[in-house]
Amino acid sequence: MSNQLLVLQSDFGLVDGAVSAMIGVALQEAPNLGVHHLTHEITPYNIFEASYRLFQTIEYWPKGTTFVSVVDPGVGSDRKSVVALTNADQYIVTPDNGTLSYIKKHVGIKAVREISEVKNRRENTELSYTFHGRDVYAFTGAKLASGHISFEEVGPELSVDAIVELPVVETLVEEDLVKGAIDILDVRFGSLWTSITREEFYRLDPEFGDRFEVTIYNNDMLVYQNQVTYGKSFADVRIGQPILYINSLYRLGLAINQGSFAKAYNVGVGPQWHLEIKKI
Amino acid sequence: MSNQLLVLQSDFGLVDGAVSAMIGVALQEAPNLGVHHLTHEITPYNIFEASYRLFQTIEYWPKGTTFVSVVDPGVGSDRKSVVALTNADQYIVTPDNGTLSYIKKHVGIKAVREISEVKNRRENTELSYTFHGRDVYAFTGAKLASGHISFEEVGPELSVDAIVELPVVETLVEEDLVKGAIDILDVRFGSLWTSITREEFYRLDPEFGDRFEVTIYNNDMLVYQNQVTYGKSFADVRIGQPILYINSLYRLGLAINQGSFAKAYNVGVGPQWHLEIKKI
Amino acid sequence: MSNQLLVLQSDFGLVDGAVSAMIGVALQEAPNLGVHHLTHEITPYNIFEASYRLFQTIEYWPKGTTFVSVVDPGVGSDRKSVVALTNADQYIVTPDNGTLSYIKKHVGIKAVREISEVKNRRENTELSYTFHGRDVYAFTGAKLASGHISFEEVGPELSVDAIVELPVVETLVEEDLVKGAIDILDVRFGSLWTSITREEFYRLDPEFGDRFEVTIYNNDMLVYQNQVTYGKSFADVRIGQPILYINSLYRLGLAINQGSFAKAYNVGVGPQWHLEIKKI
Repeated sequence: MSNQLLVLQSDFGLVDGAVSAMIGVALQEAPNLGVHHLTHEITPYNIFEASYRLFQTIEYWPKGTTFVSVVDPGVGSDRKSVVALTNADQYIVTPDNGTLSYIKKHVGIKAVREISEVKNRRENTELSYTFHGRDVYAFTGAKLASGHISFEEVGPELSVDAIVELPVVETLVEEDLVKGAIDILDVRFGSLWTSITREEFYRLDPEFGDRFEVTIYNNDMLVYQNQVTYGKSFADVRIGQPILYINSLYRLGLAINQGSFAKAYNVGVGPQWHLEIKKI
Repeated sequence: MSNQLLVLQSDFGLVDGAVSAMIGVALQEAPNLGVHHLTHEITPYNIFEASYRLFQTIEYWPKGTTFVSVVDPGVGSDRKSVVALTNADQYIVTPDNGTLSYIKKHVGIKAVREISEVKNRRENTELSYTFHGRDVYAFTGAKLASGHISFEEVGPELSVDAIVELPVVETLVEEDLVKGAIDILDVRFGSLWTSITREEFYRLDPEFGDRFEVTIYNNDMLVYQNQVTYGKSFADVRIGQPILYINSLYRLGLAINQGSFAKAYNVGVGPQWHLEIKKI
Repeated sequence: MSNQLLVLQSDFGLVDGAVSAMIGVALQEAPNLGVHHLTHEITPYNIFEASYRLFQTIEYWPKGTTFVSVVDPGVGSDRKSVVALTNADQYIVTPDNGTLSYIKKHVGIKAVREISEVKNRRENTELSYTFHGRDVYAFTGAKLASGHISFEEVGPELSVDAIVELPVVETLVEEDLVKGAIDILDVRFGSLWTSITREEFYRLDPEFGDRFEVTIYNNDMLVYQNQVTYGKSFADVRIGQPILYINSLYRLGLAINQGSFAKAYNVGVGPQWHLEIKKI
C-alpha cells in the first residue's frame, strides 16, 4: 500500500543538522524514497500544533503516503512510539502523546501499532536516548514508506480507543450565535482560524456582505468586540479592514485584508481563546 | 516540452501547512514530479519581490521547468490566473498582478494563457476562495510540468501586451555619473543590489581599485554619501569596509565585507530608494 | 562510487534566490540527481559551524553521497576550492578555509583535490566573482554526484596535511573532573553541546541520577555554577530543571527540560566558552 512518499514534520527547525540526519537515515534505508516536508517550525513541544498541521495537510497527499511527526517532549520517558493507519489509508509515525488527536477525530484511525524497538530501531543506537526522531521514527517511516516492512511488522497492535487525545473545545450553536475556539493561526498573515466549521456557521444563514458582532475572549477577559463583514475572500473588504470568511479548511476565519488580525489585537491561540459570532 | 520539474515560490512561509498542501496536490496529480522551491519567504503581498526572485533564478533552471509563484493579495478578486511561456521555454504559473514584470522585461514572454478554472481547478474546491495556490496554481502547474496538459490546454490565450506590469525605474547614465534604484537585498548579507547593469556602470570606465562617490536617497532625503572602492569581490577590501562590485546577476552591488550595508545605514529597497555613483 | 545524492549547506538562508539557483545549476547538469539540504542557516561567515554541522550529519547519509558546503567569506580571494574524499567514502565540495576541520579530525580524509576552474566552472561565468556556490561548487558537486566526472577529474591532488584547520580545544580529564568547550547549540531547544565525549565523561564513573557540579566560563569570567543531575533523557528531570546527558552525537550535553539553557543563563558557544564537570 505504501507509495514511496515520506513526509517529515517536527519542532526541530532547519537551523542545525537534525532534519538532515533524519533524511539521511531514511535514504540509507531506501535511496529512492521521495522525502518531503510538512513543516519543521512547530512551536517547540507544542503537540496541539503538530496535531493540527497534520489534520490541515494530509488530505492533500496521495493515498499510501507515510507521515513522520516528531514533537516529542517526553522522549526517553515511557510514552509509546506508534504508527497509525488512517481511514484515508495513510500512515502516521509519531510518539503517542496527543499528536494523533485531530486525525482521530476528523479523519478516523483504522488501526494503531506500537513500534517494536527490537526490530525497528537503527542498529547501535541503544544508548542514544534523546533523538528518537532519527533513530526510531525516520527509520521506521522509511521502512514502511518503501514497503520494506508491512504495517503488521511495525509491532504489536494497540487499541485505537487508548490513543492519547488532547481535550477539544466543542462548538456551541444557539439561535443567532455560534461559539468556538481559536485553534491556530495562518501564521504568515496573522489570520485566526477557528474551530467553527462552515456547516456550523451556516446555521446562522449568512450571506456575503452581512455583518456580525464578533467577540473574542482570553479566558473570561474581553479582548475584541466589533462588527465584521462576512465575505468570500480578503479582497471583498478594503485594505486594513477585518473580514469573516470560510478558510481553506472550510472553517470560519477572521482576518484583516493585507494586515495581521493576531498582531493588531494581540490575539493568541489555544483552548483558552474563544470567540462568539452573533447575528446583528 | 515539460521536463517534470516543478519549482514553487510564495509568501506563505514554511511555518504552517500551506506549502506542504501544495506539494501534496502536485504529487497527487503526478507522483514522479521533481518538486523544488525557489523561496517561500517573499515579504507578504510583495509582488515586486516575487517578480525579482523569479528573474534572479529561472535562468539557472533547465529548459521546460515549470515555476509556480503565488504572491496573491488579490486572491478571490477578479485578477486573472495565468500561465506565461517565456522566451527561454519555461512556464510560469501565477496571478497576473505584476509578478511577470521582470520576466517580461528581461527574459521576454512568448505567449500567455488564462487558466480555465472549469478544467484546471481541483474538484470540489469551488467554495474555497482563499487558497488558489493549492486549488488552482499548484494543480495547474503539476498538470503542465507532468505533460498531463499542454500549454494550449491551460485555457484561452491572452495578449502579452496586456500583462500587468509594475513601474520600473530606468537607469540614467551621464558623463561621469550613473543613477539607478536599489532594487532588492542579498538578504542574509545585507548587500544592496541596484538596477544598474554592468554595461551601464562600465560606461564610467571603472578599474578595480578605483574609488567612486556613492550617494543614496530615500525619496529626496540624503541617507548615505561616501567614497567607496570598486573591487572584484568582498575580500578586496578589509573586513568592515564598504565595496562597490558587480554581483552574481551582473548588476552593481554595494556591500560591507563581512558586514551588512543595509543595517549599517538603514537602507531600504524599492523605487523610492535611489543612488548615484560618481567618478571622482 | 557516486550515488546520485547531492546535499547542500550554506550560510545563504532561504529568503532569496541563491539556494534555488544552486539547485537549478545542479539539475541542469544532471536532471535525475536527488538534491537535499543540510542547512542554509549557518551563521553568516561562521566556518566553525559549517564544519560542525557536516560532522554532525554526514555519517547518517549513504556512502557515495556528495556534500556541497558554502560558507565562504573569502570568495574571490586566493583561498582554494577543493573536494575531499572522506574515510567513509563521501565527497565534500567546499572552500578550503577550515570547513573540513571536524571531518578531518573525527572522520578522516583519504585525499583532497583542488577544483580546476578551467574544466569545472560553469561556462561564461568568468566575470562572476561573488557566487562560487553557484558557479563552481554546486556545478562541480553535481558533476561528481552524477558520475559525469570522477574524483580524479576534479583537478590536481593536494596534500591532506595542508588542509586549513581551525584550532580545537582539547578535553582535559583529571581524577574527578573533566574540562571541555561548549562547541555548539542544539539551536531550537537551547541545549549546550560540549566537546566532551561519552568516553571522556565515563571516566568519572557516572550513574544516572548522580549529581555533578557544573561550572561555565566565558574566557575567565564565571557564568554559571550549580549542581546538575545526570540523566538519560530530558524527561528524567522535572520541567524547568537542568540536566546533564549524553546527546545524539554521544557527547556531553547540558539542557533544561522544556526550556533553553542557553537563554536562561546567556551562554554562548565557541572556544572561549568552556566548562568543568566535577564529581560531588
